[in-house]
Amino acid sequence: MKAGPALSSGLLADVLAVVRRLNRSATHDGILVQSPLPAAMGDAAERTVFDTIDPAKDVDGFSPVNVGYLVQNRAALTACTPAGVIELLDRSGIEIAGRHAVVIGRSDIVGKPMALMLLHRDATVTICHSRTRDLPAVARSADILVAAIGRAGFVTREFVKPGATVIDVGMNRVDDEATARRLFPAGSPRLDQLAKKGSVLVGDVHPEVADIAGALTPVPGGVGPLTIALLMRNTLAAAETRHAG
Amino acid sequence: MKAGPALSSGLLADVLAVVRRLNRSATHDGILVQSPLPAAMGDAAERTVFDTIDPAKDVDGFSPVNVGYLVQNRAALTACTPAGVIELLDRSGIEIAGRHAVVIGRSDIVGKPMALMLLHRDATVTICHSRTRDLPAVARSADILVAAIGRAGFVTREFVKPGATVIDVGMNRVDDEATARRLFPAGSPRLDQLAKKGSVLVGDVHPEVADIAGALTPVPGGVGPLTIALLMRNTLAAAETRHAG
Repeated sequence: MKAGPALSSGLLADVLAVVRRLNRSATHDGILVQSPLPAAMGDAAERTVFDTIDPAKDVDGFSPVNVGYLVQNRAALTACTPAGVIELLDRSGIEIAGRHAVVIGRSDIVGKPMALMLLHRDATVTICHSRTRDLPAVARSADILVAAIGRAGFVTREFVKPGATVIDVGMNRVDDEATARRLFPAGSPRLDQLAKKGSVLVGDVHPEVADIAGALTPVPGGVGPLTIALLMRNTLAAAETRHAG
Repeated sequence: MKAGPALSSGLLADVLAVVRRLNRSATHDGILVQSPLPAAMGDAAERTVFDTIDPAKDVDGFSPVNVGYLVQNRAALTACTPAGVIELLDRSGIEIAGRHAVVIGRSDIVGKPMALMLLHRDATVTICHSRTRDLPAVARSADILVAAIGRAGFVTREFVKPGATVIDVGMNRVDDEATARRLFPAGSPRLDQLAKKGSVLVGDVHPEVADIAGALTPVPGGVGPLTIALLMRNTLAAAETRHAG
């Protein structure tokens, strides 16, 4: 589409103008730009937009300075999904200190901040990804296994040490019956759901893992709602800091 | 000492004034504040001083925004010691991608940036620390083992898989003969050195590891000089960016 670049920079300029206005606004405490941005805005758009958000209103915790504060274990607005996982572990009484945590996935939004948060809670932390050799064996060494890769049912039984805590960050929409039948046994209500609605939400963890995990978060209904709750916590923290300052 | 707090804030104000002047200076490209700062300046002084350095002149790579850029794998001034280790591995032809790297130590200056840099080079990365259970066994799973803990000769033979690459970031001054004799065999020139100079520099890796490691950096003379070289590279990069901008 020849009009692409012109369209793209116009859109980006519009979004940046909105962000700058909200940065200055006395009545807005938090700013969240829902990603992904339209592809027409260009590859660098997302980074440019996130970099423009005032770090004090960056309730997603994506701005470089908030990420730096996280690394340095200082008070900051931090990524909501991994913060939600920590909250979930704490409220479930699962000990983190001294345990071996394995994070599969190294995204800026989940994998890397998750690893840092677990490290600061005194876990021994391993980060794995698509280039990891013998991933099932590495995953099996985990007391706490976090799957954040975006592949439906990727983490099967052979990835899990019996009794391990398994956190499923994946949220994959499955719309073909063959895939669904690999994941769910005949007669599962999830297959009915697929037939009725045309798709089902499936995590990165295969449902069969429930048989051997010590604890497993469901999808949907596990980590997802916590992300929203932590976003509200960040917004409250941003407001309190701003009104105290 | 009753005069402490007053002395402390006066010293800190002086240092901050110098940093701010150098931030504004058109003829200075890089700023490095040698740590540790005097204890009389107070616990928070170091953080305050590092936070005041203009990130564009932060050749140590300690400012939160540069740390955030590192996490996001963007161009940045990054910590010199871990960057030197990457340079050393590359120049020695040691493959990083797909290997298991274990980093012992989780400091902001070495351990955490080292883990991130190895991750971005496609290693599977484990970070260990004082709370890690069965540390020798975890370390033995490493193809590349980085020791950055600050304890003379802590990493012994039982920490090392035969043939592994071992990077010794430690730099410990040993001045008692009993410790030196645990580290060096009778007749070692290092013991003569202790007798003559009153101390020897010893890494975190026990010299016995040389027998089983595939490669091992010496102390002194290994990682140390690279830190200085990478500091110069950062300074050059800062100058080039500033004069291009």
